[in-house]
Amino acid sequence: MASRSRITRVLTRAEKAGVSAALSRPSPSTFSVPAARSITTTAPRHFRPSAAPHGKFTTDSYPEIKRDSRFSELTSDHVAHFKKLLGSEAAVIDAVSDGATAEDLEPFNLDWMRKYRGHCRLVLKPASTEEVSQVLKYCNDNMLAVVPQGGNTGLVGGSVPVFDEIVINTSRMNQVRSFDDVSGVLTVDAGAVLEIVDNYLAEKGYIFPLDLAAKGSCHIGGNVATNAGGLRLLRYGSLHGNVLGVEAVLPDGTIVDDLFKLRKNNTGYDIKQLFIGAEGTIGIITGVSIHCPQRSKAVNVAFFGLESYEKVREAFREAKGQLSEILSAFELMDSESQQLVKKVTKNNFPLENEYPFYCLIETSGSNAEHDNQKLEAFLEDVMTKEIVSDGVVAQDETQLKSLWGWREGISESSAAFGGVYKYDVSIPLKSLYQLVEETKQKIQAAGLMGDTDEYPVVDVVGYGHMGDSNLHLNVCVRRYDKEVEKVLEPYVFEWIKKHEGSISAEHGLGLAKKKFVGYSRSENMIRLMKQIKDLYDPNGIMNPYKYI
Amino acid sequence: MASRSRITRVLTRAEKAGVSAALSRPSPSTFSVPAARSITTTAPRHFRPSAAPHGKFTTDSYPEIKRDSRFSELTSDHVAHFKKLLGSEAAVIDAVSDGATAEDLEPFNLDWMRKYRGHCRLVLKPASTEEVSQVLKYCNDNMLAVVPQGGNTGLVGGSVPVFDEIVINTSRMNQVRSFDDVSGVLTVDAGAVLEIVDNYLAEKGYIFPLDLAAKGSCHIGGNVATNAGGLRLLRYGSLHGNVLGVEAVLPDGTIVDDLFKLRKNNTGYDIKQLFIGAEGTIGIITGVSIHCPQRSKAVNVAFFGLESYEKVREAFREAKGQLSEILSAFELMDSESQQLVKKVTKNNFPLENEYPFYCLIETSGSNAEHDNQKLEAFLEDVMTKEIVSDGVVAQDETQLKSLWGWREGISESSAAFGGVYKYDVSIPLKSLYQLVEETKQKIQAAGLMGDTDEYPVVDVVGYGHMGDSNLHLNVCVRRYDKEVEKVLEPYVFEWIKKHEGSISAEHGLGLAKKKFVGYSRSENMIRLMKQIKDLYDPNGIMNPYKYI
Repeated sequence: MASRSRITRVLTRAEKAGVSAALSRPSPSTFSVPAARSITTTAPRHFRPSAAPHGKFTTDSYPEIKRDSRFSELTSDHVAHFKKLLGSEAAVIDAVSDGATAEDLEPFNLDWMRKYRGHCRLVLKPASTEEVSQVLKYCNDNMLAVVPQGGNTGLVGGSVPVFDEIVINTSRMNQVRSFDDVSGVLTVDAGAVLEIVDNYLAEKGYIFPLDLAAKGSCHIGGNVATNAGGLRLLRYGSLHGNVLGVEAVLPDGTIVDDLFKLRKNNTGYDIKQLFIGAEGTIGIITGVSIHCPQRSKAVNVAFFGLESYEKVREAFREAKGQLSEILSAFELMDSESQQLVKKVTKNNFPLENEYPFYCLIETSGSNAEHDNQKLEAFLEDVMTKEIVSDGVVAQDETQLKSLWGWREGISESSAAFGGVYKYDVSIPLKSLYQLVEETKQKIQAAGLMGDTDEYPVVDVVGYGHMGDSNLHLNVCVRRYDKEVEKVLEPYVFEWIKKHEGSISAEHGLGLAKKKFVGYSRSENMIRLMKQIKDLYDPNGIMNPYKYI
Repeated sequence: MASRSRITRVLTRAEKAGVSAALSRPSPSTFSVPAARSITTTAPRHFRPSAAPHGKFTTDSYPEIKRDSRFSELTSDHVAHFKKLLGSEAAVIDAVSDGATAEDLEPFNLDWMRKYRGHCRLVLKPASTEEVSQVLKYCNDNMLAVVPQGGNTGLVGGSVPVFDEIVINTSRMNQVRSFDDVSGVLTVDAGAVLEIVDNYLAEKGYIFPLDLAAKGSCHIGGNVATNAGGLRLLRYGSLHGNVLGVEAVLPDGTIVDDLFKLRKNNTGYDIKQLFIGAEGTIGIITGVSIHCPQRSKAVNVAFFGLESYEKVREAFREAKGQLSEILSAFELMDSESQQLVKKVTKNNFPLENEYPFYCLIETSGSNAEHDNQKLEAFLEDVMTKEIVSDGVVAQDETQLKSLWGWREGISESSAAFGGVYKYDVSIPLKSLYQLVEETKQKIQAAGLMGDTDEYPVVDVVGYGHMGDSNLHLNVCVRRYDKEVEKVLEPYVFEWIKKHEGSISAEHGLGLAKKKFVGYSRSENMIRLMKQIKDLYDPNGIMNPYKYI
């Protein structure tokens, strides 16, 4: 009667805590799954790490990177040209010939994590594709290096300059161009903010097929340029499938006018795909058309404790099979990650006991009653089979957000002790969590992890989008430390290569992963990629020092 | 009481016919929607047109195409090299130095529609990626032009030679390489037949995310090379989203080893995307890894009659909203298309009366009871709102296939009178059917359409994947006729350009659409495409005379 007694305890917990009246089961057929709720968003706001790193110059952190001497130095003549071209004063932030301060430029020079800081002295904010074209052509003709920048929320240093590259920021191109409320196809400027666009779609009963924590700041163009994955990939697939058209500008000013708005178009090479995930290294995306799905009327969230990683895999298999078309997220969190969130947020944990693993399951569907029935049947099944040890289901939107908070809070909590080494990787499910265990063992064996200040490492935690085979490995530290780095790299990358994973599942290459791409790509592939870079950007002015 | 009386009549029809006991409604809340069935396939077999065209040489139909004099003529030395390389006699069909007959070569020289016929005298069937690499390198070094060929089921003449190009056929590379039954990721040789792979997946509870009438013959590699769309795109999205990895060989023998097996990999340009839809013009696909969804346990099909195209659009909008995550097909058929099928097949039509438009709706889900309830509520709603005039729901798998037959039979029936001019296009939904009406008016105004033999045109019919904005326009003729062609082209392409559609939604360019690509792509895009072609195939040996 082990499983029955666990369930009884959950009921007691639910009564006490109010967070989670979930798996109460007088008889197996009467789980009290609550009514699902209409919600408009499940993602928490974007935030800066509470204990962010120093923000020293990238040129100091990476002294081996030298400024490419082929690039011109900015002159006041260059700036005068741009001011004439872009007209409005609002379009140019200039520390070359005008008095813009380092503070004025900091939002464009410094990345969100405060890990990468450039020496840019000129920011341009063109207001149209035509302006982007004229700016780029001039830069290309004059050998001026540029960094395309959207909301500057990237995690690999791809969206800020290293030296004095000109930042071309898309924030003034931020309009919805069109929306078809029968087909769900949206066409939007690259600089539109994801959350604003998603709210616009919500009013029309649609949803943007991408959601991520940075939604309040990130730009659609940046999302496409980095091939952002996020929380909805499991359900809606990748941008390579959803993006129907791209408008972009090549360094020579050519406008790639491929802003098609229908789902089928087999008339030649699908060149727009090259810009999805190119991180601004071959052109600047100025517009996007994308297929948006209907917004689900009903959303449910459940949170489970499990005894082993093997049980998590079984739970995932069952969730895929039983929740099928309504499964919209399956997130994994290990015990260590949840303890960090507890410690940092001081929130009440939704389960009474601790387990080695937790998972969060979200369903989204068009019929609340049907979804509840499916979820109920699933819960009964995984409890009966003793796959899941304990669990709760959100009763309202507040609880739903609270449960998501235990997943979404890991990133901030990981950084709260001083710093964090982050790895965003994909690994086949059978060995996905093994990387966390083995990395932790290595760090412990090196005597680098402990409870007191003498040890640099606080803990090693693993979590991520299980449904996409996407693991986030966070090594939480009190301070950045060369000894820790020596243990981690290239060990982590070698491990991932051996297990046929990817060293960057969704964050991209940027500056952070540039030199490690060989762990995920063959020499042939790297050669073919360089060929593409040379084809579109022969002068190398686009986002230099990064990517491949 | 108009809608009530229509419904009563349907009940009578259902009682009489037995095909379709559907929208019987004693009271609005008790539609008798039947139990959904487990099915393994809904697509009919592939068939050749019953009255196929003559099969004359492409060089006769397109006298303006001249053999590229840069290409070498095949010699017995070349053939000896290939025989040594590929070993087995089964790998080479040789009319150059050996006695292979025109009949032996016909399956490789003649396309499925018997519209395009080449002069190929050598067919090679490599058994491995390494063999493909060696063959291609030799061809490239010796300026021997080649045509990559899978199941040879294409509809635009892309898979057969024009002159004496060597056919490189993938049929001997036909194995499943791996399948992960938790993630659903399949890795397969390019020459595996779609239906065989789908049956393999069915045994494991999964489905290939693509289905099309040619499934019994077409190869996965050919599907990817042509970016096939088909019947499941509405639900599962395009190959650009589902294909996770591609293994391909470039003309110089380079192996593009990008056979990744996870859903997320942001490590550089997504070069594999260029091969999806490249129609064998930059390399030969030898392997594919693809994300396969769970197979639905329950499938329902309904068939409706509607009074206008506007009502069809309303029905689609309601189906999207109400059937949402279980909607797996929404197909449009006009009255003329159904009359053709009736005439040719002599089958009993599922509805008693005739309507200007019909649509077929398929749902696929994991819970038959829930799906039935959703379908029932939808049917009640569209009947009450008088969007749909009449309809039936399949009661078992036989009826389900019979209903699909009215959609799938149009292609064959269109060709039954002598020939057919086929246009596979995408058009925004608001004007999608207008193309059929206006084309018909043009042909009638030219005095080319009538019931007797003196008129070349039998009828103009429209149907297609409404859910993907994909229209098939068929001009059914008694004989191919220059006067008809003059009315049709460039009129149809100009019309599509004006309405921001695509001149080839899913069939591709091949030889048939090569010269019309400018109606769907800008000069910039065509220039960028030619750049890609020149980059990967500088000698132009890959599938020459076609594409762009």
